[in-house]
Amino acid sequence: MTTNEKALELHKEWNGKIETVSKTPVKSREALSLAYTPGVAEPCKVIANDKEAAYTYTIKANTIAVVSDGSAVLGLGNIGPYAAMPVMEGKAVLFKEFGGVNAVPICLDTQDTEEIIKAVTWMAPGFGGINLEDISAPRCFEIEERLKATLDIPVFHDDQHGTAIVVLAGIINALKVTGKKKEDCRIVVNGAGSAGIAITRLLLTYGFPNIIMCDKSGILSRDTKDLNWMQEKMMEVTNLQGENGTLADAMKGADIFIGVSAPGIVTAEMVSSMNKDAILFAMANPVPEIMPDIAKAAGAKVVGTGRSDFPNQVNNVVAFPGIFKGALEGRATQITEEMKLAAALAIASLVPDGELNENNIMPEAFNPKVAEVVAEAVKSHIRK
Amino acid sequence: MTTNEKALELHKEWNGKIETVSKTPVKSREALSLAYTPGVAEPCKVIANDKEAAYTYTIKANTIAVVSDGSAVLGLGNIGPYAAMPVMEGKAVLFKEFGGVNAVPICLDTQDTEEIIKAVTWMAPGFGGINLEDISAPRCFEIEERLKATLDIPVFHDDQHGTAIVVLAGIINALKVTGKKKEDCRIVVNGAGSAGIAITRLLLTYGFPNIIMCDKSGILSRDTKDLNWMQEKMMEVTNLQGENGTLADAMKGADIFIGVSAPGIVTAEMVSSMNKDAILFAMANPVPEIMPDIAKAAGAKVVGTGRSDFPNQVNNVVAFPGIFKGALEGRATQITEEMKLAAALAIASLVPDGELNENNIMPEAFNPKVAEVVAEAVKSHIRK
Repeated sequence: MTTNEKALELHKEWNGKIETVSKTPVKSREALSLAYTPGVAEPCKVIANDKEAAYTYTIKANTIAVVSDGSAVLGLGNIGPYAAMPVMEGKAVLFKEFGGVNAVPICLDTQDTEEIIKAVTWMAPGFGGINLEDISAPRCFEIEERLKATLDIPVFHDDQHGTAIVVLAGIINALKVTGKKKEDCRIVVNGAGSAGIAITRLLLTYGFPNIIMCDKSGILSRDTKDLNWMQEKMMEVTNLQGENGTLADAMKGADIFIGVSAPGIVTAEMVSSMNKDAILFAMANPVPEIMPDIAKAAGAKVVGTGRSDFPNQVNNVVAFPGIFKGALEGRATQITEEMKLAAALAIASLVPDGELNENNIMPEAFNPKVAEVVAEAVKSHIRK
Repeated sequence: MTTNEKALELHKEWNGKIETVSKTPVKSREALSLAYTPGVAEPCKVIANDKEAAYTYTIKANTIAVVSDGSAVLGLGNIGPYAAMPVMEGKAVLFKEFGGVNAVPICLDTQDTEEIIKAVTWMAPGFGGINLEDISAPRCFEIEERLKATLDIPVFHDDQHGTAIVVLAGIINALKVTGKKKEDCRIVVNGAGSAGIAITRLLLTYGFPNIIMCDKSGILSRDTKDLNWMQEKMMEVTNLQGENGTLADAMKGADIFIGVSAPGIVTAEMVSSMNKDAILFAMANPVPEIMPDIAKAAGAKVVGTGRSDFPNQVNNVVAFPGIFKGALEGRATQITEEMKLAAALAIASLVPDGELNENNIMPEAFNPKVAEVVAEAVKSHIRK
């Protein structure tokens, strides 16, 4: 049986990958009177007088919603809310298994920006955070920004920021391996959707001064037609020389290539045209922009992909469980740029200098220390 | 420590009464590739082609949402969505502990009828049913009816129908104990909110021809001012003689009194004015409309209350877990009147004739057979 066949079979057997479980058994009248009426009225009254007490007496303390509209699911595209559920359940599994965070998958039967914002706003009281997932660009930017502005709990679009954080963590370690300095690096980010834009923004925040974004049409510049509002905004802070041309043109003399785009679109020639000791993160899934062996043969020093069967897997799972664990434990109201940078540095630090090499820049996803370390870093950067 | 103090302490310790738990551990790359990417794409693709497959591959098969706006919580009133959470969590606990049904508490930050309908409609894809809870009348009637009309999963307002079902179950057994016939009974229902109206409707469906509804203003008739639209509608099927007067007037010659109203408002004199072998369900909580010993001394034969420290506890917990268990297992799209009647008869049947007496008309809530028997009855009355 292939992995895919086995996965389908198992999903049938599981019949839903998560369950809700009571923390307390209710096997007697007394237990019932404590967990339910009449005793339950007591915490209700305390919270009615002080909303903050919800963090003491309810699941708000340690539970998030994983919210999607099913518009941009994995590589499957706009498959809608019903078909998106297995992914959101899987995400909920990972939040709990890796970060100890309770997570409820919510797939919304609307793809209207205003309606999604309303739905999340209305359901927010019982949750300590909102993880947005697989919502297509550019709607995802507005939805996240608007919710961050109005809700008093962290809102985090993992496709954007989880990806950006692990990429930055990997780049930090790749710089150590290659001896490159961020000030000197020319970076090409290929793919100008939610992940590509968030990666670019976080790399800029970290201090990379020179980033070129590309998409199917080649280099994005102020001259590019049909940019969406977020891409327009990105043109104020990237491609400052106003270059135009193809992806191949962009990669000439680049130090770092980051692909969140399509299989096989980077050639050996493009890699050869990059600077010495080039760093490539080819994260198209399951088939990367260029296979690692080809990139290496063409002169690349460090190659990361999204796959577990190659070295340097760039996988969000080292980020999001610890980020929400830290945000919830520290009662953050937002996940700020400082917290994201702290998370990236923490992830990078999990590969000790002595073990760091071109084939080992990312921490092992199954190391139980990962979420702990990320959570502590995030917590210590919460502004109070 | 009192029960209330202990309940508050325990709620702090629990810090949320439910948790989300993965049905499968994710301790290896292989496990990750089966529960999450790339394997998870397989069930997604199947569901994208056939929405019904959501019942095979996702939590929709066995998970409901417990939805409230916090507008009518227990005896506490309109305490809002944050303060309502402990009750909704408690309800989720009971669904799982008694019925094996996964339940997610959702407290909505709106009390607008249209917005509540939208919120529930949008979040529905991941759930197999919606249990509405503690939403004030008359909004609860419209919200439930509109959702039932548009959603393809069962929608059930437990304050209405759960209560009605257990009351009918108790009445069925009380008739056996007293030898009364439904055709001959005069029934007074005191309290014309969600529970009182639903009780009246189900008793009418069961075949009681003669029901008088009362509220604070006394007997409700077509002459009563300021009836809401649902109470107006009830005047077409109750109080067919057009009586007017006080609660005391209504109770003269009545066989059955059902109170979902306020503490201590029924006097011994009122009970004495009822027919021989009167049946009283005095369900105001925690202090009933009349204490059982006083009612008995005044001539009542069967007295039920909402309390566990008196005989004949009329408690929804014998109804709602089994009802949703049966509805989900049988893939019901609605919870119909037939299913409610079947549930009431099943609950009544759980007290064997040999054990039935004036102090034993309700099954023991902690009998694990209850939810099984109710679920089977509900399942066998699903129209396909």
